Amino acid sequence: MKQSNLFTKTRKEAPKDEESTNAKLLIRAGYINKEMAGVYSYLPLGLRVLEKISDIIREEMDAIGGSEIHMTTLQEKEIWEKTNRWDDEVVDNWFKTNLKSGGELGLAFTHEEPLTHIMKNYIQSYRDLPVFPYQIQVKFRNELRAKSGIMRGREFLMKDMYSFTKSAEETDAFHLEAQKAYMNIFDRVGIGERTFLTVSNGASFSKYSHEFQTISDAGEDVIHLSRERNIAVNADDYGPEILKDFDLEGIEFEEVKSVEVGDIYKLGTKYSDALGLSYTDEDGTTHPVDMGSYGIGIGRLMGTVVEVLSDEKGIVWPESIAPFQVHLLSLGEDEAAEKVYATLTQKGIEVLFDDRDISAGAKFADSELIGIPYRVVVSANTEKEEKIEVKKRTEEDERLISVEELISQL
Amino acid sequence: MKQSNLFTKTRKEAPKDEESTNAKLLIRAGYINKEMAGVYSYLPLGLRVLEKISDIIREEMDAIGGSEIHMTTLQEKEIWEKTNRWDDEVVDNWFKTNLKSGGELGLAFTHEEPLTHIMKNYIQSYRDLPVFPYQIQVKFRNELRAKSGIMRGREFLMKDMYSFTKSAEETDAFHLEAQKAYMNIFDRVGIGERTFLTVSNGASFSKYSHEFQTISDAGEDVIHLSRERNIAVNADDYGPEILKDFDLEGIEFEEVKSVEVGDIYKLGTKYSDALGLSYTDEDGTTHPVDMGSYGIGIGRLMGTVVEVLSDEKGIVWPESIAPFQVHLLSLGEDEAAEKVYATLTQKGIEVLFDDRDISAGAKFADSELIGIPYRVVVSANTEKEEKIEVKKRTEEDERLISVEELISQL
Repeated sequence: MKQSNLFTKTRKEAPKDEESTNAKLLIRAGYINKEMAGVYSYLPLGLRVLEKISDIIREEMDAIGGSEIHMTTLQEKEIWEKTNRWDDEVVDNWFKTNLKSGGELGLAFTHEEPLTHIMKNYIQSYRDLPVFPYQIQVKFRNELRAKSGIMRGREFLMKDMYSFTKSAEETDAFHLEAQKAYMNIFDRVGIGERTFLTVSNGASFSKYSHEFQTISDAGEDVIHLSRERNIAVNADDYGPEILKDFDLEGIEFEEVKSVEVGDIYKLGTKYSDALGLSYTDEDGTTHPVDMGSYGIGIGRLMGTVVEVLSDEKGIVWPESIAPFQVHLLSLGEDEAAEKVYATLTQKGIEVLFDDRDISAGAKFADSELIGIPYRVVVSANTEKEEKIEVKKRTEEDERLISVEELISQL
Repeated sequence: MKQSNLFTKTRKEAPKDEESTNAKLLIRAGYINKEMAGVYSYLPLGLRVLEKISDIIREEMDAIGGSEIHMTTLQEKEIWEKTNRWDDEVVDNWFKTNLKSGGELGLAFTHEEPLTHIMKNYIQSYRDLPVFPYQIQVKFRNELRAKSGIMRGREFLMKDMYSFTKSAEETDAFHLEAQKAYMNIFDRVGIGERTFLTVSNGASFSKYSHEFQTISDAGEDVIHLSRERNIAVNADDYGPEILKDFDLEGIEFEEVKSVEVGDIYKLGTKYSDALGLSYTDEDGTTHPVDMGSYGIGIGRLMGTVVEVLSDEKGIVWPESIAPFQVHLLSLGEDEAAEKVYATLTQKGIEVLFDDRDISAGAKFADSELIGIPYRVVVSANTEKEEKIEVKKRTEEDERLISVEELISQL
């Protein structure tokens, strides 16, 4: 894409009311626009990153048997009353609205109830199980405070998968598969090394649940981390009982700030009991369906990557989720740069080509801020050598190499 | 995909309160689930169709210079007050909600205001124009009645593009490009022959606007159509003045029911004036930015295809947007069918493989209802001939051909 066709521009300043590093950088670089606290639009560069993360998540969910669907935001109260989650005293972050034709509606903050209700049409027998529907869909949460940029939104894109199985044992087995898929995702988006499986109390559903926590000073959580055992305990739940239950007694832990980038809950039969989702086994006996839920906030994941990988000059994207692989800068050599652009694009390499008529300094500064993995400069100097100048965003030094050498690297 | 892995099943009956043909068929075939009137979840088959339509629209929007973005549902009232569209007396289909931290919010029914506001960050000079941002995003409209299935939703997926140009002339020129792109879209999704450019009064924005109307008895609109001139006039606006202005006097028109599948508005400077979006020209003079909007309801388009192409046995998808190209039915010959499945899939052909242990009659009936373009049967008979039996959904007769012949056709 030619940068002259990208309608966004970098900005010197983020909005004054923006406190988070992730949103400040993403706004300044033109990835997102702040509509209000916790509510951000995604502009062309930002949408590209969001889609790349979503596609990685899709691949990993499909690999463990997921079926993608798309449920609705608008929710009728009847099914939520059955699980006692309609009342604002019970769930404190509902957005509610009214139908002109009468009746109160909610904006979905999660989808256990409607999906369990849908599944009653399709699950009757043990032959219909297990199934693992998931969606990548916008959630609404009426947070009192939203100061963490795209890491805690009032409106945000989330991947939520739900498992429907015959038994708690079958849910446990899938749980382990989902854990592996989640670690694949965090590895692939570039934060695997600093992301840890974390045990915590299981809300009302089961004794314990699992979270994935990424070490970051921008995090709102604190975990007790054992790098040796590759596991962490949520600080809120850290104590003799949880240590004993997970065989972690006597282990040394370090306390670190972290971001919850994913969670896995065993739901048991809470929702299937309340909503009447059951199946008959081989013997004709009826059982409630066992359930689990598996969430990843996609905006939060994007924000976390920005928080943990950026430097003082700007964003640093891993290649897997960068909006483009190559940022091509023409320094007064537009014709030669056009040729490089054509060659790289033809090879299927995603290139943002800065063809604008602005100073070299402005191009370099924009490139650091936007954070594309490979910066390629075409200038009078590089033309003399019949090479291009390549610098990785994560490295200090540039190298003069041929276009072919760059292609073979990518 | 193996049908045993598809969690949906066909149903004999649609919900009793469902009146529309499109939703009845789509629910019975397992494409969608009705949450309430005008609010439908998309299940795996339905999401595949929605994505295929979306991808066609993306290609056509990108081809005329579109940049994809994703704006938010939640809207603060301040910018809508500037254009006098916050008040429920002015806009009668708002959903409104409240922030826990104080303040009323709306759920976006369109996005002129927030996008014009965003563009103030990026448009200052004539060099920044024209730009054509678009999104494929969910809209909310608080309709009093919603009886047309996915053709008129309270929550629905929409493609909305907006043009920002230097002048009304430049908007007009883009208007023509967008018209061509729209006709490409309607051709590609299989309803081009029955879809007509229609002139109507231009709401408050300009004297006239353009709609695209598809002939259908399920439509809520009526148009006066001239097939000879390949143009229609919206019945509400049909009269001497519009006929004169479009040089249509003395033409013979037929009156038909139709669905509005797309619209194009010239917005002029209504929004840019109200929100202060301007640019400076080559001489340093300041002008308001000229705008246009270009909408297509994606669920409505899907519903229209179902309405106009289905028959008494079920849905009939065009190949371009079918959830799968081939519906492979094994009639007791699972091993042979598995081989056909592997061969087709390897060639990149999308196959739904009915590997379920149910009767041949049930498989045939499901296949007609689901509406995949090519039905392929593997049975003892076809095995004897070393062929497969292929029937197009749009044709009556099946043919015995080889797998290779089928592949070369697809």
